Amino acid sequence: MKNLLIAQSGGPTAAINATLAGVLTGVRASGKIDKVYGARNGIEGVIKERLIDLNELVRDSKAMDTLTYTPSSALGTCRYKMKDWRKDEEPYKKIVETFYKYEIKFFIYIGGNDSMDTVDKLSEYCRFNQHDFIIMGAPKTIDNDLNLTDHSPGYGSAAKYIATTISELACDIGAYDIPAVTIVEIMGRNAGWLTASAALARINQGAGADLIYLCEKEFDNASFIRDVKEKLAQKPGILVAVSEGIKDRNGNYVSDQMSSGAVDNFGHKYIAGAARALEQLVRKEIGCKVRSIELNLMQRAAAHIASETDIMESLMLGQKALSCALDGESGRMAAIRRLSDAPYRVEFISVPVNEVANHEKTVPLNWITADGHDVTEELIAYMKPLIQGETNVKYENGIPLQLKL
Amino acid sequence: MKNLLIAQSGGPTAAINATLAGVLTGVRASGKIDKVYGARNGIEGVIKERLIDLNELVRDSKAMDTLTYTPSSALGTCRYKMKDWRKDEEPYKKIVETFYKYEIKFFIYIGGNDSMDTVDKLSEYCRFNQHDFIIMGAPKTIDNDLNLTDHSPGYGSAAKYIATTISELACDIGAYDIPAVTIVEIMGRNAGWLTASAALARINQGAGADLIYLCEKEFDNASFIRDVKEKLAQKPGILVAVSEGIKDRNGNYVSDQMSSGAVDNFGHKYIAGAARALEQLVRKEIGCKVRSIELNLMQRAAAHIASETDIMESLMLGQKALSCALDGESGRMAAIRRLSDAPYRVEFISVPVNEVANHEKTVPLNWITADGHDVTEELIAYMKPLIQGETNVKYENGIPLQLKL
Repeated sequence: MKNLLIAQSGGPTAAINATLAGVLTGVRASGKIDKVYGARNGIEGVIKERLIDLNELVRDSKAMDTLTYTPSSALGTCRYKMKDWRKDEEPYKKIVETFYKYEIKFFIYIGGNDSMDTVDKLSEYCRFNQHDFIIMGAPKTIDNDLNLTDHSPGYGSAAKYIATTISELACDIGAYDIPAVTIVEIMGRNAGWLTASAALARINQGAGADLIYLCEKEFDNASFIRDVKEKLAQKPGILVAVSEGIKDRNGNYVSDQMSSGAVDNFGHKYIAGAARALEQLVRKEIGCKVRSIELNLMQRAAAHIASETDIMESLMLGQKALSCALDGESGRMAAIRRLSDAPYRVEFISVPVNEVANHEKTVPLNWITADGHDVTEELIAYMKPLIQGETNVKYENGIPLQLKL
Repeated sequence: MKNLLIAQSGGPTAAINATLAGVLTGVRASGKIDKVYGARNGIEGVIKERLIDLNELVRDSKAMDTLTYTPSSALGTCRYKMKDWRKDEEPYKKIVETFYKYEIKFFIYIGGNDSMDTVDKLSEYCRFNQHDFIIMGAPKTIDNDLNLTDHSPGYGSAAKYIATTISELACDIGAYDIPAVTIVEIMGRNAGWLTASAALARINQGAGADLIYLCEKEFDNASFIRDVKEKLAQKPGILVAVSEGIKDRNGNYVSDQMSSGAVDNFGHKYIAGAARALEQLVRKEIGCKVRSIELNLMQRAAAHIASETDIMESLMLGQKALSCALDGESGRMAAIRRLSDAPYRVEFISVPVNEVANHEKTVPLNWITADGHDVTEELIAYMKPLIQGETNVKYENGIPLQLKL
């Protein structure tokens, strides 16, 4: 039997189910797979033998279409870091046991950095112990920090949500005639790709973020206050976009400036974000109206405003992962190589997963403007194609249709 | 000359520009208006004589279409409460001066409660002093708390954003296999209409809010923790929707439980929302993973997911306000009367603005379930028609087109 097992892992995105749908589309097209299973909650579901049958889904075009546009991980997710098999072989044994029991030949793991580490370790374990399984990775992460792929599925949709939302917030803020600062916190501890997408709000020469601070660049409170004051001298309503992970010159998170010391009525320490810390700073140093906004889980879950380019590429990467697996590739990840920005052209390739795992691709410092509070045209040119196109999401009773597995 | 002046006031919405476009459409259709002006930043712009010419816009169908789907108040907004003219006549004199200077015959003010108070006071002032101006109101508020109208323009779009977002967040939260509570704070200090719309996320039998607390009902911490524990016993990921304005039995805001006392590193008091207060409570009483999310300005600005029903009604109300004005009505507000839920049918009427101003329409207590943490079928039936239909918003370079006046 040549059965296939698929699982999803890491933080959900608006496009990870498109990649799952892509694998399933590939299964239908190839005719080379006997049975398809999904593991619940990533590799944990393989270890615990929590498998579900996906064969019916493969034949149901309507359900597959709904799946493509359903946010989050339909198979469930986990955050599970595999140890070296030489130190803890137990989970590896259980995985292999599940593979043999369900006659799995191919395993495709859709996820980010940690998931690619799992693909790497598991394929190495199988190779070393002469288990003839094929383990392929398919990328996803809104953070866009995966190595060896031009960009990551999920990023374009999150970027489109952020660009759209920032443009809408700028309209809201611009309606008032009094000095006010709005600070929007965007996900990204170490990589500022998502925060950079706030710059796309201005792409039609409309209102957008006035100041953009990525976590790659050292953040200085005094410079920030100076920047804000300068902007406030030009117009009343200022919009600032910051990465959650901005750090001061000593490498300490700006968000820690606020959480240190302060306790609530229960005696618990506050857990605050970078934007809230800066909100307090502006209140103290400038004293004008100030508000902080966290885009929170919405930036990875807002499938209704997903990028069609992103969804289509995510589908293609699922298909690519499967076709590589069928070709006998193992320990590799499907990836995107960009051929040109305008016209936007890409090709789908596969890359060695051990060069993806445990690397982090951050925004090049020369793509941040010299003044430290905006992004360059090169970065705009890189991001712009990724948010193009609106999806064909179906609505029922006024809200988007979603598939539950 | 029979000139028209339009202004917008109060908190922006995704539909207030549709009402502006509706007035302008009416101008074009009627042929009875000589010139059209817009005042910048509401009544303040009338007082300060900050008027802009809208005549060209009236003839530009494409710009008008873009305006219809542009969020926030394109003319700008203000929060200005007029005093009784017998106590402070100065602003009234300035308004009347502007009217005479620009040969304004008709003034249409699009706004919420305070704006209708302005319409009321101003029309009374004009009547008493025998100034022959016609002052009409057109409603807007995402809070849906305006009296004498079945619902308010802007509410349906905010409700559609909330229902969609809650359904997407529920997908995200449902992907995890560990006990976790996510608390979503929704706008509404005294009226829970917006929070109630979280219930619409379940309209297709999908995942949605597990617990919904409106500000109309007394909020009890102990009952809340009991409710959460009960839900957690059934499944790992729980989603709670709360009004920002939930209050305890003494009428104190739940959000004050957190802000009282606690100070940050600068010695400033924390300003926290209800969700953050409850986040701390869950952390203390249950100890599981917990996260709070504020939908913040996005819920009123997210025009990309506006309700087409809401946008069309907002347009119609603009037209209605104009036609009433042309018919000589003054001191009144265009409003919606619902004829039936299913099929959904409404008619557009006008109502005396003095019965709208300074009233607040809250959710009837019998539309909240007896257990206090959900809404009834009657409330669902009321809300459901208002979020139907997706708008024809145009995109350019991947983000929605917006019009700047």
